[in-house]
Amino acid sequence: MSSQSIEPRLLKGFRDTMPAQMAVRQKLISSMQDTAKTFGFLPLETPALEYADILLGKLGEEGEKLLYQFTDHGDRHVAMRYDFTVPLARVVAQYPDLPKPFKRYQVGPVWRADNTQRGRYREFYQFDLDTVGSDSIIADAEILVAMQALLVGLGVSDFCIRINHRQFLASIISDLNLDRYESLIYAGLDKWDKIGGAEGVIEFWRQQDLDSSKGLQVINQLQSTDGHPALPIIKLAKSMGLSDEHYKLDPTIVRGLDYYTGIVFETSLLKAPEYGSIFSGGRYDGLVGRFAKQPVPAVGTSVGLDRLYAALEQLKLLPQENSASQVLVTVFSDELQVDSLEVVKALRQAGISCEISFNAGDLGKQLKAATAKSIAYAIILGPEEKKIGQVILRNLVDGQEQKLSLDQAVEQLT
Amino acid sequence: MSSQSIEPRLLKGFRDTMPAQMAVRQKLISSMQDTAKTFGFLPLETPALEYADILLGKLGEEGEKLLYQFTDHGDRHVAMRYDFTVPLARVVAQYPDLPKPFKRYQVGPVWRADNTQRGRYREFYQFDLDTVGSDSIIADAEILVAMQALLVGLGVSDFCIRINHRQFLASIISDLNLDRYESLIYAGLDKWDKIGGAEGVIEFWRQQDLDSSKGLQVINQLQSTDGHPALPIIKLAKSMGLSDEHYKLDPTIVRGLDYYTGIVFETSLLKAPEYGSIFSGGRYDGLVGRFAKQPVPAVGTSVGLDRLYAALEQLKLLPQENSASQVLVTVFSDELQVDSLEVVKALRQAGISCEISFNAGDLGKQLKAATAKSIAYAIILGPEEKKIGQVILRNLVDGQEQKLSLDQAVEQLT
Repeated sequence: MSSQSIEPRLLKGFRDTMPAQMAVRQKLISSMQDTAKTFGFLPLETPALEYADILLGKLGEEGEKLLYQFTDHGDRHVAMRYDFTVPLARVVAQYPDLPKPFKRYQVGPVWRADNTQRGRYREFYQFDLDTVGSDSIIADAEILVAMQALLVGLGVSDFCIRINHRQFLASIISDLNLDRYESLIYAGLDKWDKIGGAEGVIEFWRQQDLDSSKGLQVINQLQSTDGHPALPIIKLAKSMGLSDEHYKLDPTIVRGLDYYTGIVFETSLLKAPEYGSIFSGGRYDGLVGRFAKQPVPAVGTSVGLDRLYAALEQLKLLPQENSASQVLVTVFSDELQVDSLEVVKALRQAGISCEISFNAGDLGKQLKAATAKSIAYAIILGPEEKKIGQVILRNLVDGQEQKLSLDQAVEQLT
Repeated sequence: MSSQSIEPRLLKGFRDTMPAQMAVRQKLISSMQDTAKTFGFLPLETPALEYADILLGKLGEEGEKLLYQFTDHGDRHVAMRYDFTVPLARVVAQYPDLPKPFKRYQVGPVWRADNTQRGRYREFYQFDLDTVGSDSIIADAEILVAMQALLVGLGVSDFCIRINHRQFLASIISDLNLDRYESLIYAGLDKWDKIGGAEGVIEFWRQQDLDSSKGLQVINQLQSTDGHPALPIIKLAKSMGLSDEHYKLDPTIVRGLDYYTGIVFETSLLKAPEYGSIFSGGRYDGLVGRFAKQPVPAVGTSVGLDRLYAALEQLKLLPQENSASQVLVTVFSDELQVDSLEVVKALRQAGISCEISFNAGDLGKQLKAATAKSIAYAIILGPEEKKIGQVILRNLVDGQEQKLSLDQAVEQLT
């Protein structure tokens, strides 16, 4: 057998999520689902595979390179889910009778063949909230407040939603007659933090043929945020509870994707800025129109759950979640096996999570295995205990033991 | 734009799961997760993509045809998750330090390019429970009891776990010197219900060259289940609570997959037999050894969640789950918009799920939209109410209205 054996290994950029991490991820997701529900966002799930033409043409050149694409058994050109936004646009166009505004969340993995040397994974969890079918700025405001609520619900308070508006940038570019530099200007602003702020950006532009005086004009215009089109949205968000310490107007925020048309935002954790933007999104009024006969306005946000997990882990803010069973029921001997099984039955019927030793005898070994698994209690049932109708409940942390009836033990453990 | 528009459509065999169905699926999964935890099974998640050689060679010829395989950006031959069992075997071999027995559950989609004409989907949810690293028959018994608990936890009582053991079949075949007919004999038994029981199976065998007298001998030996190797397992399961009405010994159960070595079982719902086996599984002591240097014993069960969903739907046993928000907060006029937003803030802070109308005015239209979404209550805040510090709470089912302070309304709704 060993000569034929296949080496057990993972693809680069893919991970197994083990029980301890899974328990925490489930808790994060569950908190976010509760918050989403409070805001009236309902769950949706789209398939892992779509026709490739559905996903192509909306992700930009960089995005498309990362798309997992192949030809399926029926010679169809298919692709794996890259994000939740494009499939949402497809859903809204495909089911025109969906009541609008359609507010949904989607959580699960997406796949991108990204460069793993930058610490990126190729399968990662996202949690998206979007409102489709309304151009009201209340919808924009609600997304901002929902982001705050998601983070506050997770016990995070030090964060900043940095807000901008595509029309603000567009009107500056248009006022200065720089339309042909539009993508260059966006690309520079998008690197603001990485290349040293205004000076770095002006230099970046200059190297790519936008002269420094023009660059300076752009930067100057960015400073005057009177009448910034995000301000009325922020005002509404504040009525719904957005706190002053949780946002700031930041005219350098661009967001890479082509499809944004209105408000755009990024959110980083102030004490873990190295994880970059955890939440990001904005309004994208043109995307659904790629599939439908008319444009359908939409606004939303996307949370990188794995990045959030890593940041919370570093900040020691991950929810504590013991994934282990509460009790190990030991088996004293083969003769007493059935008695121990009946203990297991009683504990589980009371909703107490427990395991049974699969091998009788050697109590020391059984208790050691339980401790290694972080199980908190053991129940021991030997011939003495059986005779008097009791069990021993042992606390595996401090070694304390109590002799109790099974009912009393169940009561102590619930 | 319309000339360029891409037709929004799904791949054959793939579905969108809309909010109402998602809410029910989440409830089913949550119940099953709670049960699994009580039994000491912990969550694990393996990637959607694996090296193809990990999955190939274990699924049988039929299975391999259904595998989604392709070459990725790095020229690796990769395949999409076909089940959770083979990835589990890979995990156990890859992390030899995992404490044993390793009891885990995994829930999520798997992908098979199956024939959609048989009503099969190509992306479907499974829920698997497995115990790896013990050859104890307590582990087998525990899987049987866990299956009962999963179904009982979902409110299902009319089901039967049909149990057999591969060694029982193997010893009959060996006693009758029919080893070279082994796969044929298994294939016939596997069709028992479909081709009319014993007679049909003997005829099936005869057509494929196993003469009728030998066939009859096999059938006769199947009847004598004294000393059947599943009996000691069943005895232990009964100590842990397996009810007489929930199982039967059925010597015709085979399970198609090559890798089973001990107990095998299938479970159907008695009042929805047309959905076939909802749970199935058994012991597979050889599988992990394909990746490791030595064999690692394992036993488990797999639940077809979509099939279970469909069967429960037909039996009207699906949990009732209203996915809609509880309250719509209407907006009387643009002037009163901020007041309504503050109501929304208060409701959400109290954990009440609510939506806000994105367009002010035309109360009738706002209420109609809420009713269409199955929202139970509306809050109306007009100039009169604002003056006296109240809101109108309207029950959208019976049309009753109450004038209340916001605090009173929150109290009524929680």
